[in-house]
Amino acid sequence: MSMPSGARFCSTNAFTGALVSNGLAPGFWVQKQSILAHSHASVHARVMSGELPFLRLHEDDTPWNAVRNVSDSLREWAHDLVVLGIGGSSLGGRALISALGATGMRVHFPDNLDPEQFGDLLDTLDLQRTAFNVVSKSGGTLETMVQFLVVRDRLRDQFGPSSLKKHLVVTTDPEHGLLRPLADEEGLTTLAIPPGVGGRFSVFTPVGLLPAACAGLDLDALRTGVAKAAERCQSNEPEKNPALAAAAIYHAFDAEHARPVLVTVPYATSLKSFGEWFVQLWAESLGKDNRGPIPITAVGATDQHSQLQLWMQGPHAMVINFVEVEAFRRDIKVGTGGLTDEKLTWASGNTMGHILNTELRATEQALSDACRPNVRWTLPSINAENLAELMVLWEAMTAYAGELYGVNTFDQPGVEAGKVICKRLLREG
Amino acid sequence: MSMPSGARFCSTNAFTGALVSNGLAPGFWVQKQSILAHSHASVHARVMSGELPFLRLHEDDTPWNAVRNVSDSLREWAHDLVVLGIGGSSLGGRALISALGATGMRVHFPDNLDPEQFGDLLDTLDLQRTAFNVVSKSGGTLETMVQFLVVRDRLRDQFGPSSLKKHLVVTTDPEHGLLRPLADEEGLTTLAIPPGVGGRFSVFTPVGLLPAACAGLDLDALRTGVAKAAERCQSNEPEKNPALAAAAIYHAFDAEHARPVLVTVPYATSLKSFGEWFVQLWAESLGKDNRGPIPITAVGATDQHSQLQLWMQGPHAMVINFVEVEAFRRDIKVGTGGLTDEKLTWASGNTMGHILNTELRATEQALSDACRPNVRWTLPSINAENLAELMVLWEAMTAYAGELYGVNTFDQPGVEAGKVICKRLLREG
Repeated sequence: MSMPSGARFCSTNAFTGALVSNGLAPGFWVQKQSILAHSHASVHARVMSGELPFLRLHEDDTPWNAVRNVSDSLREWAHDLVVLGIGGSSLGGRALISALGATGMRVHFPDNLDPEQFGDLLDTLDLQRTAFNVVSKSGGTLETMVQFLVVRDRLRDQFGPSSLKKHLVVTTDPEHGLLRPLADEEGLTTLAIPPGVGGRFSVFTPVGLLPAACAGLDLDALRTGVAKAAERCQSNEPEKNPALAAAAIYHAFDAEHARPVLVTVPYATSLKSFGEWFVQLWAESLGKDNRGPIPITAVGATDQHSQLQLWMQGPHAMVINFVEVEAFRRDIKVGTGGLTDEKLTWASGNTMGHILNTELRATEQALSDACRPNVRWTLPSINAENLAELMVLWEAMTAYAGELYGVNTFDQPGVEAGKVICKRLLREG
Repeated sequence: MSMPSGARFCSTNAFTGALVSNGLAPGFWVQKQSILAHSHASVHARVMSGELPFLRLHEDDTPWNAVRNVSDSLREWAHDLVVLGIGGSSLGGRALISALGATGMRVHFPDNLDPEQFGDLLDTLDLQRTAFNVVSKSGGTLETMVQFLVVRDRLRDQFGPSSLKKHLVVTTDPEHGLLRPLADEEGLTTLAIPPGVGGRFSVFTPVGLLPAACAGLDLDALRTGVAKAAERCQSNEPEKNPALAAAAIYHAFDAEHARPVLVTVPYATSLKSFGEWFVQLWAESLGKDNRGPIPITAVGATDQHSQLQLWMQGPHAMVINFVEVEAFRRDIKVGTGGLTDEKLTWASGNTMGHILNTELRATEQALSDACRPNVRWTLPSINAENLAELMVLWEAMTAYAGELYGVNTFDQPGVEAGKVICKRLLREG
């Protein structure tokens, strides 16, 4: 039996031929062959050496089993899980649950220090049946630790200090950082973030998996998706490894054609958070050395009514990156509503899903006619396996792009200065 | 009694002085005086002539009273309002309700053709107690009309054709378009979109006001905010009219300093939808003639953990546009959580709101130190009056910017091509 095909990448509308001008030249792949092989080899070697575990997270049973055990325990008594985490400690789990839907516990991601949002959330919860998952590798993330202190006080006040062991789960570094010794001292349940996996690559570690499991998502299917992506990333041929192909195209449009802005547009409302997850991945990994791409996310068809004007006739600085869902999990046949005027009923007889995908194809065609480069990823449907595959492919794509840009994909030196100033301002009062 | 001060604009960090390099020159305002006076005069004349009513929507009692009457009727029997509208027909109302909170009916904005989202929403509603507000000036908006047909069939099937009069409210052109004759023929409740007000400027017409009123927002306070903004826009002096000052700065950074990307970052989760409303306003109004700015929206402090690396060290193509909330509607004092380690408790004793705003100030300082231009709007607090004032100021700012760019702010010619192709593809099957 052949493996069902997963995510597909189509770059036709990035090339001369589909585009009268502004397209990549037909000799693009030949020209890039050597640099792509080099980029792939560099990432591949670091994956194989264990330095970059994000492409091998399907291999080890341990974290998957640990997550399952913890989530099984929580689901016995808790109705709500609140994830105390920000950035890479919340975006991945949220993307999974938004796309795949929660059938288990309700999972909340109050990933800010906003007192209105956090206070209102706490007010709506039945604390007796609420678990809190504090997620920070270092234990030094200001927003997360402040939330953690507030929650600890609430729990201690209402249920006594001994309640912390029941209500708190700590996802942190297996050895280092501030949270690990605290958790050990207090006997809290912990989950380990594998060394070498940074926040924005951590969705398929316990960081993203515990919320996913609590929400009732299918861990086995997620794991299969990770494995499928890893398998495809074995190849250094762009036609077999779409992550490598896409990295080459986005990088070339930025570095050689002055199109730094990558607009990612899934045509499915449930993938909005997935787009936000990708913005962090792309922005924080590649926005360095006074260059790098600028990611934007939108939702189709919604933002045809917000940003399409800009994509069609704004500055020639953008590449549009569509994500198509071939078959929706449900569809709705459009009737006539009891009307007979053809001006009102001309779309009747189609399904909503078909109309939505036709809008995507029409928008692609309009952009191409206007010589605006665009590419498309296609998911056969939104399910755990397909989504996981796509997310890991995009993580690999980011790593390949980092090689092409010549930056360190895995650091974020630009965020430190503000933290230092903030600490000083708070201490000065 | 002096009128309480509303939104304030601070551009210090856009100028040489705060920035060692990349700032606007000290002579900026003198240099721009004439062009700004001209731009202001052009917009002002069109406002006074009635051609641009968006700055005079507080003047006429009629639509405000009409909205109040319709919402009073709906609130007698309906628990949910579903807005069938997309783009400018949903973003404004959604921004208001997200920021200000619903105390009345639940209002839903399924602004897409996504069959999963729309089907799931319809399944959760008690249709007996659900009203639908179809919003389209022309009646030719594909997504909205498809939703309208689906909803009509549901209502007809469940409650019979006579139920439409109870459950449907039509917000459309007072005379023209496809919905007006249909509504008249069927005796449906209607609200009029004032002629001359385009979708993205329509939040303070019945388009945004009916959802707002159904959610229980304070129409009088919104109206006062509109009036305050209009009053401030009387002046052609940038120090008195912040909309004019901001338009000048954003335009200059794009047109003269190659910084087209405007990143709007409210430090309040409830203002996320407000940022999305602004993206449409700015993108669709100004993205024309192969130029124009590229708006992005983010949320602070959340996206410090997603995009700050890019703002600090990415390409010099961005201006960061902060929105600060001085006093939150509630705040939370941060205790120690029963901990004594100063590494974990150093922020204890502050409130969350104070820490959040300190993060904003620290991020501004870090950006300025890195010679990255940034400006700040400050709201004393999030309430109906302040938010309405800010939204109308930003509408005016967009109109002034259109003058500076030399484009027609109020059309969107780039979105037609895709619509034509879509219709052809659907007809061809």
